[in-house]
Amino acid sequence: MKLAILGSTGEIGTRALKVSESLKECEILAIICNKNWKLFAEQITKYNPRYAIIRDSSSYKKLRNQMHLNGTKLLNNADDILEISDKHKIDTIIGATIGTTFLRLNYELIKLCKRFLIANKESIVLAGRLFMKKAARHGTQIVPLDSEHFGLFSLINAHGTDFSRIYLTASGGPFRTYSRNQLKNVTPKQALNHPIWKMGARITIDSATLMNKAFEVIEASYLFNVPGDKIKVVIHPESIIHAMIEYPNGAFFAQMSLPRMEIPIKQAMINGNRNRNISPKYRMDFHQIKQLTFDEVNGWTPAVKFGIDALKKGGSFPIALNAADEVAVESFLQKKIPFLKITEIIEKILNNHKPVEPKTISDILDVDSNVRKETSELVKHN
Amino acid sequence: MKLAILGSTGEIGTRALKVSESLKECEILAIICNKNWKLFAEQITKYNPRYAIIRDSSSYKKLRNQMHLNGTKLLNNADDILEISDKHKIDTIIGATIGTTFLRLNYELIKLCKRFLIANKESIVLAGRLFMKKAARHGTQIVPLDSEHFGLFSLINAHGTDFSRIYLTASGGPFRTYSRNQLKNVTPKQALNHPIWKMGARITIDSATLMNKAFEVIEASYLFNVPGDKIKVVIHPESIIHAMIEYPNGAFFAQMSLPRMEIPIKQAMINGNRNRNISPKYRMDFHQIKQLTFDEVNGWTPAVKFGIDALKKGGSFPIALNAADEVAVESFLQKKIPFLKITEIIEKILNNHKPVEPKTISDILDVDSNVRKETSELVKHN
Repeated sequence: MKLAILGSTGEIGTRALKVSESLKECEILAIICNKNWKLFAEQITKYNPRYAIIRDSSSYKKLRNQMHLNGTKLLNNADDILEISDKHKIDTIIGATIGTTFLRLNYELIKLCKRFLIANKESIVLAGRLFMKKAARHGTQIVPLDSEHFGLFSLINAHGTDFSRIYLTASGGPFRTYSRNQLKNVTPKQALNHPIWKMGARITIDSATLMNKAFEVIEASYLFNVPGDKIKVVIHPESIIHAMIEYPNGAFFAQMSLPRMEIPIKQAMINGNRNRNISPKYRMDFHQIKQLTFDEVNGWTPAVKFGIDALKKGGSFPIALNAADEVAVESFLQKKIPFLKITEIIEKILNNHKPVEPKTISDILDVDSNVRKETSELVKHN
Repeated sequence: MKLAILGSTGEIGTRALKVSESLKECEILAIICNKNWKLFAEQITKYNPRYAIIRDSSSYKKLRNQMHLNGTKLLNNADDILEISDKHKIDTIIGATIGTTFLRLNYELIKLCKRFLIANKESIVLAGRLFMKKAARHGTQIVPLDSEHFGLFSLINAHGTDFSRIYLTASGGPFRTYSRNQLKNVTPKQALNHPIWKMGARITIDSATLMNKAFEVIEASYLFNVPGDKIKVVIHPESIIHAMIEYPNGAFFAQMSLPRMEIPIKQAMINGNRNRNISPKYRMDFHQIKQLTFDEVNGWTPAVKFGIDALKKGGSFPIALNAADEVAVESFLQKKIPFLKITEIIEKILNNHKPVEPKTISDILDVDSNVRKETSELVKHN
């Protein structure tokens, strides 16, 4: 299986490479990163990919001059992955970059692979409809990599689409039990301390505000063609149940595992073949787990409602939601605004958003860019 | 869909009739009961089956002389169901009688229907191998009706047979938190007070000793062709998760619902079509459920071990286990032996059991009868 990993030095990319070690049919055709050249150099040495693309020019030069490439072709332009994928008849692409940088490239790659494993939230939140349409046109399978959507993917594939509701679980983040008053002065450091998952900075803050669930609701809607009013979020602090589906007869099915990203990543990479022994550290023992608890979504955050509303209003609302959130989170991390201001700013942006119906990736990126500017302005005058 | 219900006046039979009201394609071809003629008369009036068979002769005479049958043909011989099923090309038979009385009849009926929904534990525990072989030979689907096996049936059909383990949950019964010492003097009345499920007397006592899980382990092994060492029992007092399957990649799938027998019964009756609205009282709300807990099997009972051992030893051991348990439970209900003696007597019987390899239903009934006698003797001299 020929594999390319976009974002190989990130949280998902490093895990995917690690997982590939245990899959002997995996051939690492290409890895791509932005600028973390030290880790990238280690990955080139260890995994000896045929191609390695690093986007940052000075990082590229450092690598080119300093390291022994052992046959790996080092490149500087991410777009080269298009030609590489086409020429080598690639099987599987893991899209694990952060933000919108690779949005267009991801979209182009859909037609060049058999399976696109997607961990780039923006691709689905901003362009989910376009992505799913294109995948259907080219017979490419889109497989979500985050635990909740991978859980839904497994459940819906197995049990069918005649469900009455789907459920995404949420750990509730570090501030689950806080009152609004206690949240007034929480610091970025506190917000970055997630109880369960180790992730990048923005997604960790999004987990604290629960904005991550707003985006996951939107992703679930696009990935599985489900209207927002059939998607529920339930707080489940142990993060053992990742997703559930409910059928009209009152039966539920749940997908569960220890909260380790390696499990969905490996499962997705081996194309549904579960017949592999796993490391004992991923084995779940119900006698140790003792209990699974459930609660309503933290009352202080309107985040989930934002997601469902954005779906209902449609058009460019999901794009605006993401752009406003990204700028607001960045402003919080830079201590320009307090924690509770994040969702307040998003709400203001949404209330003033003049929706358009984006037809192309360019349309989407235009909305994204405009809303970012608006949000930055709003932060400045705050 | 032409339906016959064997044991229509029992806990499962009455629910199946009730469920049939909401399924307009259901035609009640025949109902059969033992001797509860008052309830049977109500069922004949309400559901107007084409045939109604009551086994007890004096009850039969009462009905024949006293009630207006409105076209229903009243019969006295259970074996008539064979001819009826054959003549009318029956679709679905619900085998919901108690004990071994209908074992041979159930076995004969497999070849005369398309789907056999089985709630008669003895058919599978005593003759599971014979039943499954015959069903395969005739292309008849065997669908278990109890919540745990129906959960497994749904999960395995959906997710495939490449699992590493299957899990049956157990409420733990009324004595879950008792010490051995506290159990010495518990009365039949206390033991009949099950925290979750309303069931017949023997199965309720079996739930208190956890012998029901011994039988369920055996049933699961035969129904799904799984060796005993891949079957686990986990205590789950809320009885929301009915069954789970674990795959080698560390992922679990669980089937859940409120603990209402109507849910698997209806689902099984409509042949997998879940697209029906259900009564709001069967809707599960995770915000109300709050928590699901898990624990190891009650330390004071060797029951689950008995089941796994009986599977491992094979031959007639499962038959002996059932016969010994039935006599021991009856003796407890008649206050001939104390509660803890139930499993002690079973253990003695198993230790002295000379296994045979039963090839026919007659062989099975011989073992059953012999072990019952042995157990009665043991109780007498206790």
